[in-house]
Amino acid sequence: MARIVVDVMPKAEILDPQGKAIVGALDRLGFAGVADVRQGKRFELEVDGDISDEQLEKIAADVLTNTVIEDFTITRVNA
Amino acid sequence: MARIVVDVMPKAEILDPQGKAIVGALDRLGFAGVADVRQGKRFELEVDGDISDEQLEKIAADVLTNTVIEDFTITRVNA
Repeated sequence: MARIVVDVMPKAEILDPQGKAIVGALDRLGFAGVADVRQGKRFELEVDGDISDEQLEKIAADVLTNTVIEDFTITRVNA
Repeated sequence: MARIVVDVMPKAEILDPQGKAIVGALDRLGFAGVADVRQGKRFELEVDGDISDEQLEKIAADVLTNTVIEDFTITRVNA
């Protein structure tokens, strides 16, 4: 049983209105010093047996990420 | 300039219908072997100067997380 984490974040050149809204909210609530926030998604996958890096890349790119506007990072937590 | 990552995941005892939908989609698309998926959120914060652990905990718990149904993890990427 392997656990894999796929982090999906908006590409650097893409505006992130959710993140901007959080910066504004933090400021209004009195939390100073946070210059920027970007919001993305985190997927935790439990995989039976082995799964190849190619298969993982395909799952991340085809199903979990909109590759037009998002980038993904795959991390094996315990292989 | 410090970068802080806050990962927010549904608590273990909370059903995660988004994750279940992804498991179903992967199965239909022919990606075998993924037993479970849980979907959460990832926040990347850029902070000016220093920020205390207490302040970060407060931001994560009060603003970024619904602590009734979600847990958070704070990671300093470069302090």
